[in-house]
Amino acid sequence: MPTTTHNQALVIHAPRDLRIETVETPALGANQLLLRVKAGGICGSDLHYYQNGGFGAIRIKEPMVLGHEVSGQISAVGQAVQGFVAGDRVAISPSRPCMMCHYCQAGLQMHCLDMRYYGSAMRTPHVQGAFRQSLVVDVSQAHKIEDHVSDAEGVMAEPLSVALHAVRRAGPLFGKRVLVTGCGPIGALIVLAAKQAGAIEVVATDMAAMPLKSALRMGADRAINVSTEPDALAAYNATSFNASKGYFDVLFEASGNARALAGAMEVVRPRGILVQVGMGGEMQLPMNMIVAKEFEMRGAFRFHEEYAQAVEMLNKRMVDVKPLITATIHYRDADTAFALAADRAQAMKVMFSFD
Amino acid sequence: MPTTTHNQALVIHAPRDLRIETVETPALGANQLLLRVKAGGICGSDLHYYQNGGFGAIRIKEPMVLGHEVSGQISAVGQAVQGFVAGDRVAISPSRPCMMCHYCQAGLQMHCLDMRYYGSAMRTPHVQGAFRQSLVVDVSQAHKIEDHVSDAEGVMAEPLSVALHAVRRAGPLFGKRVLVTGCGPIGALIVLAAKQAGAIEVVATDMAAMPLKSALRMGADRAINVSTEPDALAAYNATSFNASKGYFDVLFEASGNARALAGAMEVVRPRGILVQVGMGGEMQLPMNMIVAKEFEMRGAFRFHEEYAQAVEMLNKRMVDVKPLITATIHYRDADTAFALAADRAQAMKVMFSFD
Amino acid sequence: MPTTTHNQALVIHAPRDLRIETVETPALGANQLLLRVKAGGICGSDLHYYQNGGFGAIRIKEPMVLGHEVSGQISAVGQAVQGFVAGDRVAISPSRPCMMCHYCQAGLQMHCLDMRYYGSAMRTPHVQGAFRQSLVVDVSQAHKIEDHVSDAEGVMAEPLSVALHAVRRAGPLFGKRVLVTGCGPIGALIVLAAKQAGAIEVVATDMAAMPLKSALRMGADRAINVSTEPDALAAYNATSFNASKGYFDVLFEASGNARALAGAMEVVRPRGILVQVGMGGEMQLPMNMIVAKEFEMRGAFRFHEEYAQAVEMLNKRMVDVKPLITATIHYRDADTAFALAADRAQAMKVMFSFD
Amino acid sequence: MPTTTHNQALVIHAPRDLRIETVETPALGANQLLLRVKAGGICGSDLHYYQNGGFGAIRIKEPMVLGHEVSGQISAVGQAVQGFVAGDRVAISPSRPCMMCHYCQAGLQMHCLDMRYYGSAMRTPHVQGAFRQSLVVDVSQAHKIEDHVSDAEGVMAEPLSVALHAVRRAGPLFGKRVLVTGCGPIGALIVLAAKQAGAIEVVATDMAAMPLKSALRMGADRAINVSTEPDALAAYNATSFNASKGYFDVLFEASGNARALAGAMEVVRPRGILVQVGMGGEMQLPMNMIVAKEFEMRGAFRFHEEYAQAVEMLNKRMVDVKPLITATIHYRDADTAFALAADRAQAMKVMFSFD
Repeated sequence: MPTTTHNQALVIHAPRDLRIETVETPALGANQLLLRVKAGGICGSDLHYYQNGGFGAIRIKEPMVLGHEVSGQISAVGQAVQGFVAGDRVAISPSRPCMMCHYCQAGLQMHCLDMRYYGSAMRTPHVQGAFRQSLVVDVSQAHKIEDHVSDAEGVMAEPLSVALHAVRRAGPLFGKRVLVTGCGPIGALIVLAAKQAGAIEVVATDMAAMPLKSALRMGADRAINVSTEPDALAAYNATSFNASKGYFDVLFEASGNARALAGAMEVVRPRGILVQVGMGGEMQLPMNMIVAKEFEMRGAFRFHEEYAQAVEMLNKRMVDVKPLITATIHYRDADTAFALAADRAQAMKVMFSFD
Repeated sequence: MPTTTHNQALVIHAPRDLRIETVETPALGANQLLLRVKAGGICGSDLHYYQNGGFGAIRIKEPMVLGHEVSGQISAVGQAVQGFVAGDRVAISPSRPCMMCHYCQAGLQMHCLDMRYYGSAMRTPHVQGAFRQSLVVDVSQAHKIEDHVSDAEGVMAEPLSVALHAVRRAGPLFGKRVLVTGCGPIGALIVLAAKQAGAIEVVATDMAAMPLKSALRMGADRAINVSTEPDALAAYNATSFNASKGYFDVLFEASGNARALAGAMEVVRPRGILVQVGMGGEMQLPMNMIVAKEFEMRGAFRFHEEYAQAVEMLNKRMVDVKPLITATIHYRDADTAFALAADRAQAMKVMFSFD
Repeated sequence: MPTTTHNQALVIHAPRDLRIETVETPALGANQLLLRVKAGGICGSDLHYYQNGGFGAIRIKEPMVLGHEVSGQISAVGQAVQGFVAGDRVAISPSRPCMMCHYCQAGLQMHCLDMRYYGSAMRTPHVQGAFRQSLVVDVSQAHKIEDHVSDAEGVMAEPLSVALHAVRRAGPLFGKRVLVTGCGPIGALIVLAAKQAGAIEVVATDMAAMPLKSALRMGADRAINVSTEPDALAAYNATSFNASKGYFDVLFEASGNARALAGAMEVVRPRGILVQVGMGGEMQLPMNMIVAKEFEMRGAFRFHEEYAQAVEMLNKRMVDVKPLITATIHYRDADTAFALAADRAQAMKVMFSFD
Repeated sequence: MPTTTHNQALVIHAPRDLRIETVETPALGANQLLLRVKAGGICGSDLHYYQNGGFGAIRIKEPMVLGHEVSGQISAVGQAVQGFVAGDRVAISPSRPCMMCHYCQAGLQMHCLDMRYYGSAMRTPHVQGAFRQSLVVDVSQAHKIEDHVSDAEGVMAEPLSVALHAVRRAGPLFGKRVLVTGCGPIGALIVLAAKQAGAIEVVATDMAAMPLKSALRMGADRAINVSTEPDALAAYNATSFNASKGYFDVLFEASGNARALAGAMEVVRPRGILVQVGMGGEMQLPMNMIVAKEFEMRGAFRFHEEYAQAVEMLNKRMVDVKPLITATIHYRDADTAFALAADRAQAMKVMFSFD
């Protein structure tokens, strides 16, 4: 096993108090892999921890290594490991369900009663994250990436999995008309996934130009800026065969904004599916419309088997996520990276490099 | 065709301005039936028209005969009618979809683009209702009731259909643990229907004693008064195998109350089904919980094929709805009847007789 | 831990060569229970092993203790066991999935890649069965039964689980018209379960009087002897609104007989669900009808979470399985018991006692 | 309305007795369109009528115009028609459900009790077909095609609809591994549709080179000739994580061959979906495997709303069906066309022109 002389990590202590610290590399178990982390993506939750120390009831109570979107290269394999060798490049799933609880045994690992998801303050002690130079992972977390998949693209397997899971939650999209509200990285990847899943039309909305441009590059048939084109969405009902009751079959709500959700409901047909992905705290909802149009609103949270699908889609060149990678910044310039990630006018996905 | 010398109706003109007026009986079409209406049930929407002139955006704009829950006896049949004769006793579905629109052709008649539902001010001119002595109906609306089914029980086919539809919207209930919040007539009938559909446990909540007692008579395993036992519901999580994530598989929300819904969500397990039946206007919802527990919230609105099922269940003595029939009052005492119907401490379903 | 001075078992060596032999009682693990087996039910597969040494490709290759339907009483508990004490009466699930494989992790434990189901020659070495006086089981296999549930009724939890699983495979039965072909113990229990799940009409067919009588006692609305009433089933189409295309919504095929299946298909409506439970080897099927009526044929195999549901239904007196228990015979008279079990004119479920 | 001086049709009288005859053009109704038929595709059922006078129990009992796959150009519109004008080019759905029966009202128009599907001897009098120069159609049958869609591509909307319907019957394909057995025009279009619906891998099998080549052009990841590579399919199980229980999630059986189906079942995983599209008369099936692996076998028959989806996909260039169009032959050379269509070594779809 190679010596890991260096193992620095990005540790959040309090809002805007992010420190580079040396952390220990745990011993390598028989079914584990030691990695040099190559790239890591900044997610909205990382940004919340950095800016506000958390979100909703979830708060940092102790120092925590940030990060759950990473790829790396294997430097050593445990003695029982099969199928991986040192030098393999891998994308790493941050999801570590217990495999034994009622939910794991029901195929609902995202609801595991003992989940240890990287870089999350949901439980205390917090689960330490993956923005670090060296990392030991279980074999089940590692998925090989092909040579043509860059480190940063490998990182994208994680947010892509979230999008794939949201799309699966919607049921079949083949031939369906889809609306996506909110075109941050997750919304844009949902556009991509919905097209892959056979949606016949995908319309995306946002209030900023950059995300809308990204949605178009991900394959949206149309991108509507609801702040500059406030009536464009409502106009869809008039073009529909049913005039007043709605045009879209499926909505993916990825903004976490109550007004976006309520506005979208107007143009979704009766029995339409509303997949809620964005976290938005308390929301005021038009419940009479949910009843009278018999909507199905489904929460979509994290992912499980979709991670393998995401990596396979990247390996097979079925999707191109490169347009969403805004910049790669060295982890020593973490504050610069978070400032860029926070700027919706400029950034989709900002990556760290850990060399 | 017999002469209909009398045809009086209950016509709402404005809040608390309900008049007995003589209305015309339309000509009998070839595929229609002429009925003497025997009994009619007061629904929550009738009460809203009576008390407030409507609800939400739906307002009385012209005089309207109230009522959509009725049973009657055939006095004449149209010339092309088969399977019915004068004297037959029938329960009448108030739902008249157009049969031709996109939604009718998709089996979603409750979303018909040209629905003419009795006694509804949703469209203008309003659709006149069925609280009247004589009524002409389409053959497709009429369902024979057996001798052992009383006029009032026949009326119950309509609210029972609403409950059956809500239960169908939930998917299979066999072996499931079910919570019903709000035990008015619809909530109580959902308790009944959920037990019929094989739920292994049904718990009901309300804030008043009378509805809770009715829920128990409809088969609830337990009835919780959330105003006097505020912690009883939350205690279910502790008894569950999973301690914190919820106990019930399915919620039927029939109160239209945001706090009832939010409180219930706490004790529904991840991926649980929330069927929203109660109309409650704008509601503040804990959207993060909907996302993180990946709930499926489904609106349930009216019914279609469930009406035939309801009548068949009554005819086959599969259900006993008599405990929900509080009183039968002559239509000339309409104000008395509405006053009683408005009193949740005393009344479940109040009936009119039209003889 | 009490001494187990006696531990005799029913061991099949070859067709009709069933021996009473003393077997070892394994050591009691920390999360295990030692039981005195009280009762055991003879299943169709036991009968196949006894009569023919197996079925299809599955053959006895070494001596095997028979039996997978048992109940017992706890004589000792492992040191880590919680929730059970000596003296508790329990029904025992014969299903021991590995919990770790892809199928277990997907909630499909009946397809476990490393299943150890009692008394099965599917794998070699065979999995030894439970027709024995003493048995050590995992805590997860044991389900407490109430005092009012007899040992023999506790045994019925196993075949009832098979029926519950078949019913779940059908999707919602609420308000559906159901046909059950084949009324052996599984078919009869499917009748019971389908009624519990809210089927509005259940018709059962068989070629012998005894099973048909049992089906009626389990709640069938009608039982048809297809050998003496060959046209009764086909007549259903004529009573249907659609004359020629079928009457029933769901078929449970529990006879394993190709003619029964083909005959039933005639009276199932387009898009009807056909749940195949009976094993019947190669069958000749009218594939054009499956295509043109767009049937959904679904296999139903064993069970998993349904075992807990079955015990709870017995404990709550939601079902009465006593009419299916034909006789209880001491294990020393095993040949007598198998002879009776093989006689469809006399026997539904034959039980062993192991005292 | 223009005079239709010519209206010749291809009329089948008996096996291989196909005559060119002049037929009447019916009067143009208010909601109808008069077309000059431009192109018509020979389907497998046309071939059966031509070669054998029918298939299974369906036999020609009177002269019948063949054909149900056509496109054309509008020469006149009925007086109530909106949205179409003379000169518009249209693809024509051959499906004319009654809109009123139980199945139409349930959204299951392919099971209409009074279906009048072009060129079908299923009912007597037979429904006359569309291989004719002039045709009057209902507005609901006509779907405009863009300039870039050729007449022959417009014809392909019909078989594409069959494939789309089969894909819909399978449920969500996103991320699934799909096997297609039989690569005639329908099988090849299923390959195309399955890829569109997001299947992550599609493998196709046939016994002839030409269909396999077409499957690859439609996007199959691999095409296996089961006559020259008899072990290739079975090898998939060994590559799977579960070794013995199957690799594919979904099978589309489009050959109507029992051996193809049985062989495919071996490599489909437990709970896999088997969509049966090919008509194959009586088939011998391994029912024990259907039970033990709990397959879901679903028939797929014709289509309904998928026709509009097919035309929209052609109009939006989402699919390219040109590789499947083998040749276009003038209707006066019908025997030549049928001979070519019957030759699986040479032909996928053979078209008639009707100018």
